[in-house]
Amino acid sequence: MRAALGAIAALLALAAPAAALAKNAPPAKAKIAAPAAKPFFPPEPPPPPPQLHGIQYLYGSAEAAALTRQTWRMLADFVDEQVASGTHRGVVLTPDSSLTNPHFIPCGDKPPAIVLDVDETSILNLGAEYDDLIANRRVFDADVWDRWEKSGAAYVAPTPGAKETLDRLRDHGVTVIFNSNRAVMNAAGAEAALNAAGLGPARHGETLFLSGDDANGSLKDGRRQLIAAKFCVLAMAGDQLVDFSDLFKTEPNGIAARRATVAYSGIVDMWGAGWFVMPNPVYGSGVQGGPDDIFPKDKQWRDPGSSQPAISKLQPATQLKKAN
Amino acid sequence: MRAALGAIAALLALAAPAAALAKNAPPAKAKIAAPAAKPFFPPEPPPPPPQLHGIQYLYGSAEAAALTRQTWRMLADFVDEQVASGTHRGVVLTPDSSLTNPHFIPCGDKPPAIVLDVDETSILNLGAEYDDLIANRRVFDADVWDRWEKSGAAYVAPTPGAKETLDRLRDHGVTVIFNSNRAVMNAAGAEAALNAAGLGPARHGETLFLSGDDANGSLKDGRRQLIAAKFCVLAMAGDQLVDFSDLFKTEPNGIAARRATVAYSGIVDMWGAGWFVMPNPVYGSGVQGGPDDIFPKDKQWRDPGSSQPAISKLQPATQLKKAN
Repeated sequence: MRAALGAIAALLALAAPAAALAKNAPPAKAKIAAPAAKPFFPPEPPPPPPQLHGIQYLYGSAEAAALTRQTWRMLADFVDEQVASGTHRGVVLTPDSSLTNPHFIPCGDKPPAIVLDVDETSILNLGAEYDDLIANRRVFDADVWDRWEKSGAAYVAPTPGAKETLDRLRDHGVTVIFNSNRAVMNAAGAEAALNAAGLGPARHGETLFLSGDDANGSLKDGRRQLIAAKFCVLAMAGDQLVDFSDLFKTEPNGIAARRATVAYSGIVDMWGAGWFVMPNPVYGSGVQGGPDDIFPKDKQWRDPGSSQPAISKLQPATQLKKAN
Repeated sequence: MRAALGAIAALLALAAPAAALAKNAPPAKAKIAAPAAKPFFPPEPPPPPPQLHGIQYLYGSAEAAALTRQTWRMLADFVDEQVASGTHRGVVLTPDSSLTNPHFIPCGDKPPAIVLDVDETSILNLGAEYDDLIANRRVFDADVWDRWEKSGAAYVAPTPGAKETLDRLRDHGVTVIFNSNRAVMNAAGAEAALNAAGLGPARHGETLFLSGDDANGSLKDGRRQLIAAKFCVLAMAGDQLVDFSDLFKTEPNGIAARRATVAYSGIVDMWGAGWFVMPNPVYGSGVQGGPDDIFPKDKQWRDPGSSQPAISKLQPATQLKKAN
């Protein structure tokens, strides 16, 4: 907690009342009453944005680093075991699949590969998140993000454990393919970011697929099927459900319905066994909804002893990034 | 996104300008000028708290549900494999261990067990988090939390996948033991919460250990060593580093140092192989620090095209729960 307490102390100091500051006023001359110290109130700092704890957790915490290393390690173990055992079960859904009746594109003799999302799965966009926080930016700014895609390569880092896992799987003959919703016109920037993070080689059209590669815009299924036609896709990783199937987009939506979807009998056994989820409490389809959306009616406890009144509404939490 | 957009729309409507509301004014009588519509400004709703996105993610998102199921599933597979292969490697550190030179309490012929943290590892404290959000509570209130420990049992849920994994491992002869920093005087409430979530039996002193059971307060190593003296602890799960070892508390602190700790050579291979981390971007030691603590200096990108000025300070993000 030392860091946090330090920051708080600094801010409290910043907000020191006039009395404290007046101590630095020159001593009053004898017989002349000292002028009352002019009250000084520094401007109120802006409130922290709703994503602050998510940012602290994802980019700063040892807990998120351990959780991410755990996931990469399990992905590597899973793929190695599939290759060793010769099981080779594909994990990309067929076009005729539904989430309640899923089928997977078979592997045949195709060479083994894994398919990874880029942002907040393979790399952490440290620079862009720092800029959002410092600018106290509360709505997604497509122009800023476009400049980030073009020029941010030196300001990213691999997610903890990503490099070790990718190096290990490549050594074992597994092709690493990235499937991202970064824009095709910024392909050079996407390649540069992945290579700068030590996760390359990433070559657009070969091992990197982007939004605009086909006519389906941000939908990733077409790109997944293209990849699965050439490779035996043994594992996929992403921070958003759409990194595994676009079907999650067309399912009955709403918070509770989405949350139930991942436990469908045909899908529930994929998590940690072909489909690997990375944490992202900062942006995307995981951060939405108000109290009545998030908390089931029968779990809405009110503290009987609390003096604090209920507030009817909060300002809406704005979406800072498109889910990709 | 529908839910989120709905909420935003509702709030925008709430903030509709006078002109719009004036449409409901009676039509002006002929020859008499209509009185200017009296401007109406509804009270500004409070800004969302800094933990809102963390709450949305952890308690509402399908992504967090999938990530948690993935982790429980891998814990179960890991423990079953240890039992089947007869490896039986203990995962509780010996008292003379350091994080750079870790040793583990051997299993001998002791019966297999797993040791789990309770809050935001085995159960989700839905009721308490709803109450914090609705009351817009921005600082941890020990009295509210005490009432929650005593009376919240009906308002919790198991973390997604917890019940399936605990049922499966108990069927396989593994004892499930909870090690929590809930207060010993609220033992009945802790047992009730775990049983209500379907994760019992939890019996204080047998399969449930709490803060106050020994003289070490919230430090969990003493309780871990007590458990490891009787059981072969094959896996531990928690949302905080101190759920695995109190040594993480005494390590050189600060954001970057903590984050580096989990990659120590003696420790890095434990994540996903004996030590299993659950996500918690809402409270605890993972949510602390300001921009300069979170983001390395060489990753602090500023958008060259942005019109938004940098803000020197944010209001400090307050800690809502003690790390346990």
